Amino acid sequence: MIKFRTLAVGLVFAALVISPLAHAEKKYRWRLAETWGPNFPIFGDATKNMAKMVDEMSNGRLKIRIDSANKHKSALGIFDFVRTGQYQMGHSASYYWKGKDINTLFFTTLPFGMTTPEQYAWFYHGGGMELMKETYDQYGIMSFPGGNTGNQMGGWFRKEINSLEDLKGLKMRIPGFAGEVLAKLGASPTNIPPAELYTALERNTIDALEWVGPSLDLRMGFQKIAPFYYTGWHEPATELQFMVNQEAYDELPADLQAILVVAMKTAAYDMYTQSTHESSVNLAEIQEKFPDVKIRSFPKDVMNAIKAENDKLLAEFAAADPETKKILESIEAYSKKARQWTRFSDVAYLENFDSE
Amino acid sequence: MIKFRTLAVGLVFAALVISPLAHAEKKYRWRLAETWGPNFPIFGDATKNMAKMVDEMSNGRLKIRIDSANKHKSALGIFDFVRTGQYQMGHSASYYWKGKDINTLFFTTLPFGMTTPEQYAWFYHGGGMELMKETYDQYGIMSFPGGNTGNQMGGWFRKEINSLEDLKGLKMRIPGFAGEVLAKLGASPTNIPPAELYTALERNTIDALEWVGPSLDLRMGFQKIAPFYYTGWHEPATELQFMVNQEAYDELPADLQAILVVAMKTAAYDMYTQSTHESSVNLAEIQEKFPDVKIRSFPKDVMNAIKAENDKLLAEFAAADPETKKILESIEAYSKKARQWTRFSDVAYLENFDSE
Repeated sequence: MIKFRTLAVGLVFAALVISPLAHAEKKYRWRLAETWGPNFPIFGDATKNMAKMVDEMSNGRLKIRIDSANKHKSALGIFDFVRTGQYQMGHSASYYWKGKDINTLFFTTLPFGMTTPEQYAWFYHGGGMELMKETYDQYGIMSFPGGNTGNQMGGWFRKEINSLEDLKGLKMRIPGFAGEVLAKLGASPTNIPPAELYTALERNTIDALEWVGPSLDLRMGFQKIAPFYYTGWHEPATELQFMVNQEAYDELPADLQAILVVAMKTAAYDMYTQSTHESSVNLAEIQEKFPDVKIRSFPKDVMNAIKAENDKLLAEFAAADPETKKILESIEAYSKKARQWTRFSDVAYLENFDSE
Repeated sequence: MIKFRTLAVGLVFAALVISPLAHAEKKYRWRLAETWGPNFPIFGDATKNMAKMVDEMSNGRLKIRIDSANKHKSALGIFDFVRTGQYQMGHSASYYWKGKDINTLFFTTLPFGMTTPEQYAWFYHGGGMELMKETYDQYGIMSFPGGNTGNQMGGWFRKEINSLEDLKGLKMRIPGFAGEVLAKLGASPTNIPPAELYTALERNTIDALEWVGPSLDLRMGFQKIAPFYYTGWHEPATELQFMVNQEAYDELPADLQAILVVAMKTAAYDMYTQSTHESSVNLAEIQEKFPDVKIRSFPKDVMNAIKAENDKLLAEFAAADPETKKILESIEAYSKKARQWTRFSDVAYLENFDSE
């Protein structure tokens, strides 16, 4: 009997010890839908990097399967996938949802907006995360920075842009808000699926296009058919987006929540680092192998006219919605301060000594 | 007997189940020694941020206690603390160890070196991490990026610098490699403990000093006594350093290793974001409350002379040690490519439109 009792006590003790551990060891299997096709470089690396960190840090307790666009068949369905809980997570870009909610437009980048370091400072210390939460809470979606491309180039042009006249009638693939701005100055912005871009430019269906920057442009081949590569103005710090279904998140234990949030944040920062690398290496390759490509900036008066139209459009948005006004005022006040610092730090530094 | 047997089987089963869990649940208590005093802003936030992420992600299985300099009494003893295993971790800056090993000098920043995004790209994609590992492996220390200050300002000057003549005899607090460079041009670089800096400048014991930038300079009060604030050249991207004792790391299970590495990486990136924020806000405060402070850049010929001396010194280092040569060649080749991209992206962008 003594032996039996000891065993019984032992069992009860074991059960007490096992119980919280067994709970902690519950495994979660999540799915993430991304806007990009399979093996899409850099953007797709960000989701793989995030999922790998989560897997390793959680010792396999949270595994995230990534479905690319070929699988879920709806590149721009990510918002609804996550809202409805069909997928626990998504990877896309906030400005794709402006048709659903205009205020989602401001959490990716804006023409003449902040640089990447400035924008991260705004997100994490200047109220950006809080404003993004206000915008997304009503949809049961948590939104996080999802990786930055760095400054995007102004695009590939078959003809040089010397004056505002050259914008009139210019057929250019430039979707979204920046296209609206150019339309005000007489350009004809269009959107064309990525796979058809090269042919459209080659056959003069369009006169110009913007894609991303050297990091992703090189493999598209535009350098073979467009002699002018313009510096950027319309997407100075494009930040992709991780989305998480709020209910799914709430079901995770606190340590897995922390692991997920840190992994998303790190994958986002890492993508900016990777973009900087790929752009540097690919720009060097373009300059070496395609010496006829001329890198240009738009003339001052063209830039100023574009900026004036941009400011007018933003003022219209702000007048139409008090939440928009609040977000835009936050961005404007913050970027004014941050830009002063950028000018006296990195810009002054780079001007301080002669380049090669 | 049947009951007893069932129990016995149950116990064996319980033991089998508990065993790996109990192992996984082993708790680790680590200590980190940092160069900074207690509550040192930004730098000290990086260690607290890292330890908090580790605690939360590991569900308390790895706790890291932070000892500031007031506790361990040896601000520059961190390298040896970690090498000997007296502390499992340290937080400091690699260039403090150049007296022990000249090659540690190159993993913080260099005069006329890379900007922060360029340098992160070099660390993670350009071979920087591998070269740092080569340098530190022999000491049983793992070294990781530990947080970036962003571009540091050139310093506070009581008199304007108009020519190379003005550097002759200039008494300036500027320690380390940059001080050696200025000495070649006739300046008298000195090092002075932080607590005595203000008085030294006020009483003309020194004519100038560099500290960090607006993020940390504001609270030092230099803006009250030095009218000229010069833009930077000597520390364009100062990266602090996490150090981990290799044996202690090897004893951690794989998931805690992953948690630690990700937390250090994220805390480093986060510090760059925080530095950008604090510098932006504090620069605005300096400009608003101290309108007499003039922000200047050194004249071109002064910068060029400083850069020539800098290049000479680096060439001497490279000639003295093949590993140094290898590291410097890696940095030079990488920064040349990355700088081209920086010029055509952020710099062209910032020049593209009129500032306020």
